[in-house]
Amino acid sequence: MSWTHDTLGQRVRMATGTAAEALAEEVDRLGARRVMVVAGPAETSLAATVTAGLPVALRHDEVVMHVPVEVAERAREAAAAAAVDAIVTVGGGSTTGLGKAVALTTGLPLLAVPTTYAGSEATDVWGLTEGAVKTTGSDLRVLPRTVVYDATLLTGLPRHLSVASGLNALAHCVDSLWAPRADPVNAALAGEGARALAAGLPAVAADPDDLRARELTIQGAYLAAVSFASAGSGLHHKICHVLGGRYDLPHAETHATVLPHVLALNAPQAPAADERLAAAFGSPTGLAGLQRLRAELDAPRALRDHGFREEDIPDAVAAVLPVVPPSNPTPVTTENLTALLRAVWEGADPS
Amino acid sequence: MSWTHDTLGQRVRMATGTAAEALAEEVDRLGARRVMVVAGPAETSLAATVTAGLPVALRHDEVVMHVPVEVAERAREAAAAAAVDAIVTVGGGSTTGLGKAVALTTGLPLLAVPTTYAGSEATDVWGLTEGAVKTTGSDLRVLPRTVVYDATLLTGLPRHLSVASGLNALAHCVDSLWAPRADPVNAALAGEGARALAAGLPAVAADPDDLRARELTIQGAYLAAVSFASAGSGLHHKICHVLGGRYDLPHAETHATVLPHVLALNAPQAPAADERLAAAFGSPTGLAGLQRLRAELDAPRALRDHGFREEDIPDAVAAVLPVVPPSNPTPVTTENLTALLRAVWEGADPS
Repeated sequence: MSWTHDTLGQRVRMATGTAAEALAEEVDRLGARRVMVVAGPAETSLAATVTAGLPVALRHDEVVMHVPVEVAERAREAAAAAAVDAIVTVGGGSTTGLGKAVALTTGLPLLAVPTTYAGSEATDVWGLTEGAVKTTGSDLRVLPRTVVYDATLLTGLPRHLSVASGLNALAHCVDSLWAPRADPVNAALAGEGARALAAGLPAVAADPDDLRARELTIQGAYLAAVSFASAGSGLHHKICHVLGGRYDLPHAETHATVLPHVLALNAPQAPAADERLAAAFGSPTGLAGLQRLRAELDAPRALRDHGFREEDIPDAVAAVLPVVPPSNPTPVTTENLTALLRAVWEGADPS
Repeated sequence: MSWTHDTLGQRVRMATGTAAEALAEEVDRLGARRVMVVAGPAETSLAATVTAGLPVALRHDEVVMHVPVEVAERAREAAAAAAVDAIVTVGGGSTTGLGKAVALTTGLPLLAVPTTYAGSEATDVWGLTEGAVKTTGSDLRVLPRTVVYDATLLTGLPRHLSVASGLNALAHCVDSLWAPRADPVNAALAGEGARALAAGLPAVAADPDDLRARELTIQGAYLAAVSFASAGSGLHHKICHVLGGRYDLPHAETHATVLPHVLALNAPQAPAADERLAAAFGSPTGLAGLQRLRAELDAPRALRDHGFREEDIPDAVAAVLPVVPPSNPTPVTTENLTALLRAVWEGADPS
């Protein structure tokens, strides 16, 4: 047995209905006196409520997906001009990402208040784009010191975005079980995350205001992010990265359609992972549980409905093969990868 | 939902058969050039092998249970005299504890190579004794930066010590499920730890050289320690602390006899915890699984066989009641605590 697990030190508060009080305590705990609040225009009023008790020196609302470098540069300049001593983000992955970009160069402590299931708040990974090129890296300076979750902040996330973001989090859990740095520690967290997401997502889909379901799902998304950050990208994320990047396919639909096929490919060679997922889903097998959940959520099935073209399959196979993680339990060949992508394309039954 | 989880940042390597190589890499990674090796006389040759590739500036073998302050002071002076820049411990809880005592005042980075299931290596808790008085505290400086586990180092631990140390680790898992800071994160790790310990301990008891079983149990002990450090002491540890301290009862036997009765008391009011333990044990209930495991391990049953006197029960009840954690799922009264301690004393069937 040989594995190395780097646990990232971080403080996490689950504070349903009390984000403002919890955040004020945490900012005070870090001794911050001049806070920069980062929140996009859509979150302005939410952020105003949550940060009402803070010593705010600057509010910054220029949040752009994938964090363009010029946007990051303006945020850094604003932080310097206002002489802030801490950054608080209120929002989803792009908002947390901008906070990270400022923390990366300034070393300022970052506190994150997430409003989606993206999970960026639990990782030390940053990303910046220059033109069409995205650069990522990992640095402990961008890991939020403290995360404050409040399920009431998620009730505004519409049903379809909740399902898409939640299935994306579930993919973190599944792929963690055979990713390059998979180990018993991140497997335990991934299994627990899958259990919470599977229990909570149907209830969120039925009623986006169901607070208990929102608590379960945000807790699941956090565990998913911790395990994924530790385990790294497995086959599922490698495939989705290629498909999304080469053919400009929509992120959520790509993840949702690919996941069951990767699970079907790997489960026979990964019985412990399958058993863990089966237990998490309360199903005889991981795949049966995932498919039941996808049916309940009315998840996308065929990627051809979302822009993937049959004639691109050979090119996609050629692009995926070189990046298949050696850790993948089932050896990946031109043949089984072609069959997998064809099944993804047409929405075939993965079993 | 309201909880706060402080994750301690730490690097852990599972390196079966390769502790020396892994340790050399980790010492190098920290940039250390003058290492203090702490190992008791019984571990001298083990430590020599494991640390053969290190730049050792000092070997220190005065290791004493409960870390008396004068022993700690001598170790600190030796560290200063040798101008060491890192501490490596090879041994059980007392050895790790001495390394922590040096790290506490010097701030030197600590690397731990554990040879028992004690779990001190995964916590930021230190302890020192002056005369009969033990002082404990928590400080991030004493948290080992890196832990290197090597299952081959545990095969020398005799059967009875392995069972005692392993059941002690299992108690960390069980008690974590209702301890003051119990939360979904440490619950996931506690469940996983219980699963690994339950799977590995009978095999270790059958054959102390079974490497796969040693891997499972040391992995379980690590998860147990992480969850316990996060969740804090629950009812079980409060009772054992009182019994051990007031009547000088043996540590391992006290833990082994008390645990099933605490589980029997709490399970009806803690269905999620019981379900988690049942799944970990592969049993219909947590208690059934624990009792089957205890039978397989021939664990101590009645504490009267190990020095606990019937007439001390009322005094013990009076001493435990004020320290019962408010988080305990079943309200603790003079009546049910008296019944519990009587059952512990006589070794009654907890169901």
